[in-house]
Amino acid sequence: MSRSVVAAMTAYTLELREAEIKLNQNESPFDFPRELKEQVLARMAERPWNRYPDFESTALRVAVANAYGLRPENILVGNGSNELLAAAIGAFVGPGTPVVFPRPTFALYEKLVTIAGGLPMPIDFEPDSGLLPLSGMLSTIRRYDNGVAILCSPNNPTGGVLPRAGLEALLESGAMVLLDQAYGDFAQARLRTPHERLVTFRTFSKAWGLAGLRVGWLASTEENCREIRKVKLPYSLNVISEAIAALALENRAIHDANVTRIIAERERVIAALNEIPQITVFPTQANFVTFRTKKPLFDALWARGILVRDVSAYPRLQGCLRVSIGTVGQNSAFLAALKEVV
Amino acid sequence: MSRSVVAAMTAYTLELREAEIKLNQNESPFDFPRELKEQVLARMAERPWNRYPDFESTALRVAVANAYGLRPENILVGNGSNELLAAAIGAFVGPGTPVVFPRPTFALYEKLVTIAGGLPMPIDFEPDSGLLPLSGMLSTIRRYDNGVAILCSPNNPTGGVLPRAGLEALLESGAMVLLDQAYGDFAQARLRTPHERLVTFRTFSKAWGLAGLRVGWLASTEENCREIRKVKLPYSLNVISEAIAALALENRAIHDANVTRIIAERERVIAALNEIPQITVFPTQANFVTFRTKKPLFDALWARGILVRDVSAYPRLQGCLRVSIGTVGQNSAFLAALKEVV
Repeated sequence: MSRSVVAAMTAYTLELREAEIKLNQNESPFDFPRELKEQVLARMAERPWNRYPDFESTALRVAVANAYGLRPENILVGNGSNELLAAAIGAFVGPGTPVVFPRPTFALYEKLVTIAGGLPMPIDFEPDSGLLPLSGMLSTIRRYDNGVAILCSPNNPTGGVLPRAGLEALLESGAMVLLDQAYGDFAQARLRTPHERLVTFRTFSKAWGLAGLRVGWLASTEENCREIRKVKLPYSLNVISEAIAALALENRAIHDANVTRIIAERERVIAALNEIPQITVFPTQANFVTFRTKKPLFDALWARGILVRDVSAYPRLQGCLRVSIGTVGQNSAFLAALKEVV
Repeated sequence: MSRSVVAAMTAYTLELREAEIKLNQNESPFDFPRELKEQVLARMAERPWNRYPDFESTALRVAVANAYGLRPENILVGNGSNELLAAAIGAFVGPGTPVVFPRPTFALYEKLVTIAGGLPMPIDFEPDSGLLPLSGMLSTIRRYDNGVAILCSPNNPTGGVLPRAGLEALLESGAMVLLDQAYGDFAQARLRTPHERLVTFRTFSKAWGLAGLRVGWLASTEENCREIRKVKLPYSLNVISEAIAALALENRAIHDANVTRIIAERERVIAALNEIPQITVFPTQANFVTFRTKKPLFDALWARGILVRDVSAYPRLQGCLRVSIGTVGQNSAFLAALKEVV
């Protein structure tokens, strides 16, 4: 009964496994500070829950704009960056619109393009290069005058980044560029000046450690924000998550400390992995490391209480696992278990 | 740069006005009880915010299923019923799919159908009848073998309901029926047994008084839930809203008391409005009343501190206002102001 493109889709699934050490979803290992939790929750008890959120989410849009040197008109906030990605795809991708994106990448992009009736044009690349398939994307998208390019930089699940010059080349190609910087904080990625063919997505789920609250934002020109907002559902951000995200931005030092710790640990994990001969590590600037192993290790790690993500079913990632960077103790436990099982 | 159908759309807007008495968004006038707020917020301080929500939202789906005599496989929960409506439209409406819906009704339906590339087929009706355009919808949808019907019962912003026999006739027509029961609690609407061509939407925003938290759910067959879930974004319900909704369901008496009070007040407001000769009241089973006035009254009411919704720009609602049912005091203040200004 559902549309043929939907019936043909497989559901986005997550194998539900419990483990002592959970390094499978690229979450931050650091919870929001207890004192700040209590402060914002006390305010939320005062706030009426029977009233809709602010129609414009002004408080959070202003807070994001101030934190990143933009104007509130350049910002939309939403229920996780996924929601904003879906809205942007709804605004720019219609039946038959050609959409290029790297393969492998975050599976949601192709799914959303397919639902929108667009023409998915995945561009294969060698994920262990630490790069993204810039030249392939450019040569394909230049064949169309209404193309859209979607990129995740650093790319999930491989970790490679698009250099600044690559972004400029994509923008010059005339394509609309949707740039997912969910992991950008870990690559110290700066936010580009608003450009009429660029929409950049950020999230509070990774570096800010607020995955459970579902808050994301996008930055673009005022006109693009206006168009995307037509597609986005109204009132998509609840009052509590909005207040928590705004409070987080007032406490930027938390974010910066988390990012510093994660980057240091990432480099330590990469160095340790590189010393294991049976493992090939992909260059990464994200809060995760993807690596190829000579034999399947997922279950053996899990048996030792370590849950990583098995990404071996992704194109070109046969035999690969992705491990999120956790606390020092979690990472050490992962490395110890890995050395046992290889 | 955006798709032509999006560029041609006007944004969903809300005129932002402040007022002492706010009766413009069909919110519940009753906030969630303070004691329960504090109870759930205390639990939320304990919960890790850095971890994603449960992938299946099992706790809330089980709670909804138990409360309404269904199985969890028949339930999806989401970020407001709007999100689930959008997902269902994404699952069943593709380019060219004919979609009938009453006119006037909730503006979001036509917008979502347009974004999906569907063919919006509004069926005009006389909104002051208190009915919905059943025969018009049936005769139109029967001309297609892949049609979709969208209804809001009670209908927003007119208040009329679709009788049970009307729903059965729509189901027999072969159309996929998306039935928005956002206001169903106020009409004592029962939930129909799951049917392969019916998806029913409910919300915590109205009768439960949780508009600020953004929680909705849908009920359908297991297969329909599986298909819609392919389109719905993962992790769309944050951990705090999910916990609050689950706690609300454990305290059903709050809902029932709110509904009883609102219905009693609605009947009092209708009776009082019917005594004003310059006003025509539309029959309603919702938590709002729509009425036609001989001269514009919106600004005069607002000047007296009463904010209602000006719905006069809707088709066939020229000269009409919609007032949400508030507390006894709010409703009395509204009626007193109205008598002054007519």
